[in-house]
Amino acid sequence: MTPEVSLSHVFSGRSVLITGGLGFIGSNLGRALVKFGARVTVVDALIPEYGGNLRNIAGITAKIKVHRTDVREHAKLARLVPGQDFLFNLAGQTSHMDSMTDPETDLEINCRAQLALLEACRKHNPGVRIVFASTRQIYGKPDYLPVDERHPVRPVDVNGINKAAGEAFHLLYARVHGIRATALRLTNTIGPRMRVKDARQTFVGVWVRQLIEDEPIEVWGGEQKRDFTYVDDAVEAFLLAAAREAAVGEVFNLGGPPPVTLQRLAELMVEVNKGGAFVVRAFPAERKKIDIGDYYADDRKIARLLGWKPRTDLRAALTKTLGYYRKELPHYL
Amino acid sequence: MTPEVSLSHVFSGRSVLITGGLGFIGSNLGRALVKFGARVTVVDALIPEYGGNLRNIAGITAKIKVHRTDVREHAKLARLVPGQDFLFNLAGQTSHMDSMTDPETDLEINCRAQLALLEACRKHNPGVRIVFASTRQIYGKPDYLPVDERHPVRPVDVNGINKAAGEAFHLLYARVHGIRATALRLTNTIGPRMRVKDARQTFVGVWVRQLIEDEPIEVWGGEQKRDFTYVDDAVEAFLLAAAREAAVGEVFNLGGPPPVTLQRLAELMVEVNKGGAFVVRAFPAERKKIDIGDYYADDRKIARLLGWKPRTDLRAALTKTLGYYRKELPHYL
Repeated sequence: MTPEVSLSHVFSGRSVLITGGLGFIGSNLGRALVKFGARVTVVDALIPEYGGNLRNIAGITAKIKVHRTDVREHAKLARLVPGQDFLFNLAGQTSHMDSMTDPETDLEINCRAQLALLEACRKHNPGVRIVFASTRQIYGKPDYLPVDERHPVRPVDVNGINKAAGEAFHLLYARVHGIRATALRLTNTIGPRMRVKDARQTFVGVWVRQLIEDEPIEVWGGEQKRDFTYVDDAVEAFLLAAAREAAVGEVFNLGGPPPVTLQRLAELMVEVNKGGAFVVRAFPAERKKIDIGDYYADDRKIARLLGWKPRTDLRAALTKTLGYYRKELPHYL
Repeated sequence: MTPEVSLSHVFSGRSVLITGGLGFIGSNLGRALVKFGARVTVVDALIPEYGGNLRNIAGITAKIKVHRTDVREHAKLARLVPGQDFLFNLAGQTSHMDSMTDPETDLEINCRAQLALLEACRKHNPGVRIVFASTRQIYGKPDYLPVDERHPVRPVDVNGINKAAGEAFHLLYARVHGIRATALRLTNTIGPRMRVKDARQTFVGVWVRQLIEDEPIEVWGGEQKRDFTYVDDAVEAFLLAAAREAAVGEVFNLGGPPPVTLQRLAELMVEVNKGGAFVVRAFPAERKKIDIGDYYADDRKIARLLGWKPRTDLRAALTKTLGYYRKELPHYL
């Protein structure tokens, strides 16, 4: 039995709520769930600075329910919780820089709203299965590499502090209240439907746009090593985490070995694009203060417990991503 | 030069704001600062379930300014920030059990209000010197004992998650924005002016009341080891942390060696009281879920960097505490 067949069995006819469901990963997840025959409800605030984009659900709009609701509207959100079998909780403010200039908004979304949503589940749907999108950012500057799940949580910016609290609430509600929640600590996820307008979601988005618009890619620093997960692999991790009992109460890193330097990534993108250029610039001072240096994940725990492995290598991921935006770029500007 | 003389020099004539200033540690700190000739402003919400009590400032009411303001009233609080030389930030919700039944209030006070206060400092008084009252609770169940400041932060209840975020904001604002903040991770603090009505602040408070009211002390479990800081020692730590440049951006454990089991503490209290009894009961299920087992601190960092050492041993601390409540108990019920 391939994972697809078995996952289709798990989700077919089931009710699924996706917060941040018009965003990059949320919309790719929604597409997979529609394919599996799930009844998908999507919540998204469509805040212009965030990842939500109606283009992300082109072709499946008739098959999903969309609520334009902000996760900070706690009561409205709570009304969508009863009756759901699965909750994929991906809504979030993702920009590290924005979290430093407007820390209170980051707190309301990444921390406060998470607690309100968990309270809604505890009160109105304690049997729901939750998968929360956490982030490598909560580790801060790594003590050692690759970073496994036991690495201390020591965030270096407001976004990391609030995401750490949001994740901790999920794991606490699993342990103390029996809510069946799982947290995935994502590394850099790339692929179709990511934000490319600016670096608020991922710097790779901007690089893709620069390449397609025939501008040189701007590499800051360049020596930092990172790992990258292709979005279809990330989606599979969310589905497996929701489907497998072994994931309840657990936290898992996602990875995408081998790690590459940002400069190597830029080279590879120019290569895959069959053209283009990059310039290497010094790190801006404001960014340096909250940069974490090298990061790459040890993802053996999710391989062992859930059988997840990234299937798409970096070259293939970049090829598919560039292919998508060569056609779709105007919808993302 | 004794520490008193040197601290008096630091605080004499200076403007000091204490949040939670009618509470247990806050009011003892306020008394010390008045003695040193500081101009003390106190903020407290006097929420009945929390530690604030007007009796705590008996005798110094003419010498301090009191604002009955809740730290959740962000704008009101922000207006008190300009012009302060020191900010002792002690306002907090302290009950672990209450944080589980009403997690959102805990978040608003221990997390959200902390960020708002730091933003007010950044915007209106970036030179202020801040000392934040953090807690051993953020370590969760210790990996090793005694617990030093490098121990992973891994809270086991809502209160711990929010306090961890509140502390992290302080240290981040020190590192990134140059706000001169220090965090003290308090262990069990005991002494005059603690809440004795119930266990919301510390179980020792209830034990003191039970002894004085001639009821048996109720010991839950009894084998857990804990350490205790006498409040005058804790106050000295706050003052030293505010006075010494070496403390900026740092986090320090407070301790009170040697650790004792809760059963030994109960025995000692009966001994010091020259009468009374205790019963040992099984841990209630709801509490067990968020209990951390043994805890005691390694407090060598604050000894080394700031020269702090607890001066009052446990027997003396209990003697002074019981002496206070034998006279004062009616004001605390």
